[in-house]
Amino acid sequence: MYDPDNIFGKILRDEIPATRVYEDDDTLAFMDIMPRAEGHVLVIPKTPCRNMLDATAEQIAAVMKTVQLLSRALMVAFDADGITLQQFNEAAGGQEVFHLHFHLLARHQGSRLGAPGQLGDQVEIQQNAEKIRAALSAVQGDV
Amino acid sequence: MYDPDNIFGKILRDEIPATRVYEDDDTLAFMDIMPRAEGHVLVIPKTPCRNMLDATAEQIAAVMKTVQLLSRALMVAFDADGITLQQFNEAAGGQEVFHLHFHLLARHQGSRLGAPGQLGDQVEIQQNAEKIRAALSAVQGDV
Repeated sequence: MYDPDNIFGKILRDEIPATRVYEDDDTLAFMDIMPRAEGHVLVIPKTPCRNMLDATAEQIAAVMKTVQLLSRALMVAFDADGITLQQFNEAAGGQEVFHLHFHLLARHQGSRLGAPGQLGDQVEIQQNAEKIRAALSAVQGDV
Repeated sequence: MYDPDNIFGKILRDEIPATRVYEDDDTLAFMDIMPRAEGHVLVIPKTPCRNMLDATAEQIAAVMKTVQLLSRALMVAFDADGITLQQFNEAAGGQEVFHLHFHLLARHQGSRLGAPGQLGDQVEIQQNAEKIRAALSAVQGDV
C-alpha cells in the first residue's frame, strides 16, 4: 500500500527540500508549501505509513505528541485564537500525499482559511517558520 | 477553562441522550446529531479537557486509539472510500462544544460533505449507528 516515492517520503530522505520547523526521533514538522494560513504546518511520522487506517499505535502516539506541541507553538507564534486540525485518509477523504500527515492551521477570530492549492510566497513561509521555531523554544520551556 | 456544563459533559453524565456506538474506560464514540455524512461520529475522552491545547498526553492517546478503531469501522460500515478527520480548537478554530472531540466522516469518491448545522433524521442516525456497531465487531475481531 505505501509508496516510498511520495513527496513526504522524499522530504524525509532529503531528496527534496522542506522548511522544517521541528523534528525528533520519530516525527517531522514542516511548512505547507500551499499555506491556507500564516501558520500552516504539517506533522508526519518518520516511518512509513499511508494514513490513519494503516498506522501503528506507536506512529500515531508519536505524531500526536508533536501535533500538540506545534499547536501550542502556533498559538504563541501568531498570537492565534484557535487551531484547526485536519487529517485526510485516502483520496475520497481528501488525501493528496499518501504518507500520514496532520494539517495544523493557526486561526484568528473572524478570519477564514485561504483557498487550497495556491503556492505560498517562499519569503513569507520562511519568516513564518522562524516565528514558529522561536515560539517552540518558549513553549518547550514551559513543559 | 473547562466548563462541565458543555453538552458532551452532559452526555457523559447521562443527563442528555446520545446515540452511542462505542465506549471503553477512557473514551466514548457517538453519532453527531448534525451529520454531514451517513457515518459522522464524534470521539471524546471521558475525562475533562477543553481541546488539544490543554489535553494530557494520556487523554490524546486514548482518544486516538478510539479514533483509529472507529475510522476502520466506518470504512466497513459504509463501504467507504476514505475518512476525513477534523478537530477544532477554540471558537476561532471552529470549536462549538468545549470538550475535546474529533469528527470522523466516512467519505465516498466524488461525494461532498453535507452542509454543517443541519439536524439529521433520528431514524437514519439510529440505522447508521447500528451499521457502525456491527462493523466494530468485525473490525475488533481483526485486531
